[in-house]
Amino acid sequence: MEKTLKELALILEAELIGDESAVIRGVRGIDEAQAGDLTFIANPKYRKKIGSTRATAVLVGPAPEKAQTNLLVVKNPYTALIKALNIFYPAVRPKPGISPHACIEPDAEISATAAVYPGVYIGCGARIEDGCVIYPGVYIGNRVAVGEHSTLHPNVAVYDGCTIGKRVILHAGAVIGGDGFGFADFARSNLKVPQVGTVVIEDDVEIGANTTIDRAALGETRIGRNVKIDNLVMIAHGVTIGENSVIVAQVGISGSTKLGKSVVLGGQVGIVGHIEIGDGVMIAARSGVARSIPPGLVVAGAPHQPHREWLRLQALIPKLPEMRENLKSLLKRVEELEKKEKL
Amino acid sequence: MEKTLKELALILEAELIGDESAVIRGVRGIDEAQAGDLTFIANPKYRKKIGSTRATAVLVGPAPEKAQTNLLVVKNPYTALIKALNIFYPAVRPKPGISPHACIEPDAEISATAAVYPGVYIGCGARIEDGCVIYPGVYIGNRVAVGEHSTLHPNVAVYDGCTIGKRVILHAGAVIGGDGFGFADFARSNLKVPQVGTVVIEDDVEIGANTTIDRAALGETRIGRNVKIDNLVMIAHGVTIGENSVIVAQVGISGSTKLGKSVVLGGQVGIVGHIEIGDGVMIAARSGVARSIPPGLVVAGAPHQPHREWLRLQALIPKLPEMRENLKSLLKRVEELEKKEKL
Amino acid sequence: MEKTLKELALILEAELIGDESAVIRGVRGIDEAQAGDLTFIANPKYRKKIGSTRATAVLVGPAPEKAQTNLLVVKNPYTALIKALNIFYPAVRPKPGISPHACIEPDAEISATAAVYPGVYIGCGARIEDGCVIYPGVYIGNRVAVGEHSTLHPNVAVYDGCTIGKRVILHAGAVIGGDGFGFADFARSNLKVPQVGTVVIEDDVEIGANTTIDRAALGETRIGRNVKIDNLVMIAHGVTIGENSVIVAQVGISGSTKLGKSVVLGGQVGIVGHIEIGDGVMIAARSGVARSIPPGLVVAGAPHQPHREWLRLQALIPKLPEMRENLKSLLKRVEELEKKEKL
Repeated sequence: MEKTLKELALILEAELIGDESAVIRGVRGIDEAQAGDLTFIANPKYRKKIGSTRATAVLVGPAPEKAQTNLLVVKNPYTALIKALNIFYPAVRPKPGISPHACIEPDAEISATAAVYPGVYIGCGARIEDGCVIYPGVYIGNRVAVGEHSTLHPNVAVYDGCTIGKRVILHAGAVIGGDGFGFADFARSNLKVPQVGTVVIEDDVEIGANTTIDRAALGETRIGRNVKIDNLVMIAHGVTIGENSVIVAQVGISGSTKLGKSVVLGGQVGIVGHIEIGDGVMIAARSGVARSIPPGLVVAGAPHQPHREWLRLQALIPKLPEMRENLKSLLKRVEELEKKEKL
Repeated sequence: MEKTLKELALILEAELIGDESAVIRGVRGIDEAQAGDLTFIANPKYRKKIGSTRATAVLVGPAPEKAQTNLLVVKNPYTALIKALNIFYPAVRPKPGISPHACIEPDAEISATAAVYPGVYIGCGARIEDGCVIYPGVYIGNRVAVGEHSTLHPNVAVYDGCTIGKRVILHAGAVIGGDGFGFADFARSNLKVPQVGTVVIEDDVEIGANTTIDRAALGETRIGRNVKIDNLVMIAHGVTIGENSVIVAQVGISGSTKLGKSVVLGGQVGIVGHIEIGDGVMIAARSGVARSIPPGLVVAGAPHQPHREWLRLQALIPKLPEMRENLKSLLKRVEELEKKEKL
Repeated sequence: MEKTLKELALILEAELIGDESAVIRGVRGIDEAQAGDLTFIANPKYRKKIGSTRATAVLVGPAPEKAQTNLLVVKNPYTALIKALNIFYPAVRPKPGISPHACIEPDAEISATAAVYPGVYIGCGARIEDGCVIYPGVYIGNRVAVGEHSTLHPNVAVYDGCTIGKRVILHAGAVIGGDGFGFADFARSNLKVPQVGTVVIEDDVEIGANTTIDRAALGETRIGRNVKIDNLVMIAHGVTIGENSVIVAQVGISGSTKLGKSVVLGGQVGIVGHIEIGDGVMIAARSGVARSIPPGLVVAGAPHQPHREWLRLQALIPKLPEMRENLKSLLKRVEELEKKEKL
């Protein structure tokens, strides 16, 4: 794929400052870019790098300084970058059709426009809609529905009865609908509570590699529209996640907890069960959350606190030894004063 | 499946207060239940919800208040619930038989009552006993034994020579018997120490999705009878876990550590290697444990402490800034007093 | 396999103290060993156990005390142990050949000396070199290269275009090259940034079960020569790890962070994105790292601190309640003194 800067400026709705006949063949980071590359400045603080890059052109936000390189000035460099990546690295959809080496139970329904690779298993009563791509080793249980244009990467497992929306991406090894972790007479007879609920994954969700989302004991575990979940995340039975939320790697969310819309969880956060996290809450990486959080707060730590207070605390902790020394010396000095005062 | 309350009361050994001809068709949570549903109150503090539920009947513990709904009064609502779930949502065992699309090495022994799905691989000398269910994509290495009525969900991998007991459930993506993480001349030449031990999983164990249990360097890693392990847990080489223990998601246990019986580990706990955790110990979520713990203790935090002391500490930490302010002001005031005292 | 101590002494370059005709048939830990076993003392503090072991011979470092058992004295007991394990438990490489139940795209190149099991999928333009072992359920995407004598355990997935070096071991369920977690207009429209980079895994790397290594957005994620990574680790897009580094289970490393050579990360460590960890840095288990670390430091905690200071802090934290009590009493006593002083 090749584009002149003139062509690119049109497509990206950019103002071009520079040579409109220059040719772009790919996209690279500002430090790695070479002649023929487009690069980008998403964060204005890196603008000084425009001077030293070898890229043929730089995508940049409004009102850049003068530069010796060609500039494509756009309102939002990030969304323009996405467009450019899709031009130079178009996603290749595999050809539709069901591999003769896939195993499909007789009453499963599979769209003629879906691509089903070798080694896939699709259970009784399952339904795979238009344009889906089901990679090798995927297991789709009985009565599972997969909405149009969804992609299930290799070795994904979707247990019986779960529902996957449209344009969903499940990365390799993700497990949807495994039994929730429910036992009665805990740590004695450990009686298994049958997990007879399900999982519903709404449209436009993306779920990372080896992430696990358990089915509800009763009712459903629900991942809202356009939620993005990273790798190795654990979502327990009966959890609900509101639309547009973003969950970074290795987070764990315990049973029946409800997240609102546009919640952001940093990596390795842990959240107890049966609480509510309000719309727009942001929780810093590695926090431990044991109580509900009202909408809009930014919190950190374990126990979690407002992010600013937590920053102050983080700074104080290394001063504990000094505090303890001061305290000891004060105790002595006050004793001394008290003795003298008694005389 | 339909049952009258009269029939249900008999099966669940419940005292029925209400209409014995009312018909139940399913089980739902107290907030979601509709006419025709059975629901339950496991925790007495939710009893007030009996007034507002739309369920046709409520399973409840002894001596409930009067209610307008039908009540099924039982000693233990949780175990009655389990019985009811098994009635209304009976587990469907697949038909026995070996799929022609499974690959079985010639000298593996597979019971005629086992169900082996397409895409399964079973190695030389492996043995699959009566009533086992082996889902698509499962890998069973050479000389692995799987005891009767065990279920291996899709894409489970059991490396060579491991032993799986009876009625064991391994959820999708679990890996049993991968090499322990053992290297000599650490962070220099990183010489691999061959991991020639094995893993033994005793009867009635359940292991969550994408959990990994490494084989021992020498000897065995052993998961005791009726242990329940959640998703994404890491059990390192040579670990022993005593019977009935319960391990919540994303826990990591380092090499050669021994857990007693009925130990409970909350989510995301980390435990160092070569220590002993006594019978009945409970460790709160996200704790970091670096020393052995005697039987019966309830601990929390990193470093771990008795749970009560930890609660007190958790409450103190947000008061650090105030403590530091007080300390500063005291220092000044004592200086002032000392000056005056010298006059 | 059987060896006399005379034979073993020769192979292990050991000084034999004892009966050179005694016969060894296996290796076990010092507590489990029986007659016919070789055992070892890697750490001198366990030397007293030589007196009680039932092993026929003990591998031990220089200048041991007299013992009733046969001793094989070597410079480095750990490397001698590795040799002995390889003698008594030789790794069995499967026979070369491509299973007729594997699916190989027509233009993939597979060495005649590679072993490819049933249920493997190998994509267009992929290249599998001499002596590789590809276990059941492995997915190898288009244009992936796997260097000679590498082993891919069951259900590993390697996405399109990634490069795996020589003598690499990927344990079951590992996912290489899944999309990095990159979105614009975060927690609102969550626009996916196409991840068009790749992953390069250099020679002699070992990667644990269910670990995930994401492809770069642009450029590459790179795991250096001889790096060892444990189970359930998350390596995000664009991360670089220097040679010989060792990463214990459940660690998470965020995007674009660079680790130097011979870095050691304890279990469950979390590291933010876009920072640099210098050569030889050691980070204690469960630390949270948010800033770059210069070479050679040993750190712990969150925020991380020099390991020694952190140990001191860890000891102080349980003393917080006492500190707070002292502070309260001091406040009173100083008030008292001030009152009297005013009189």
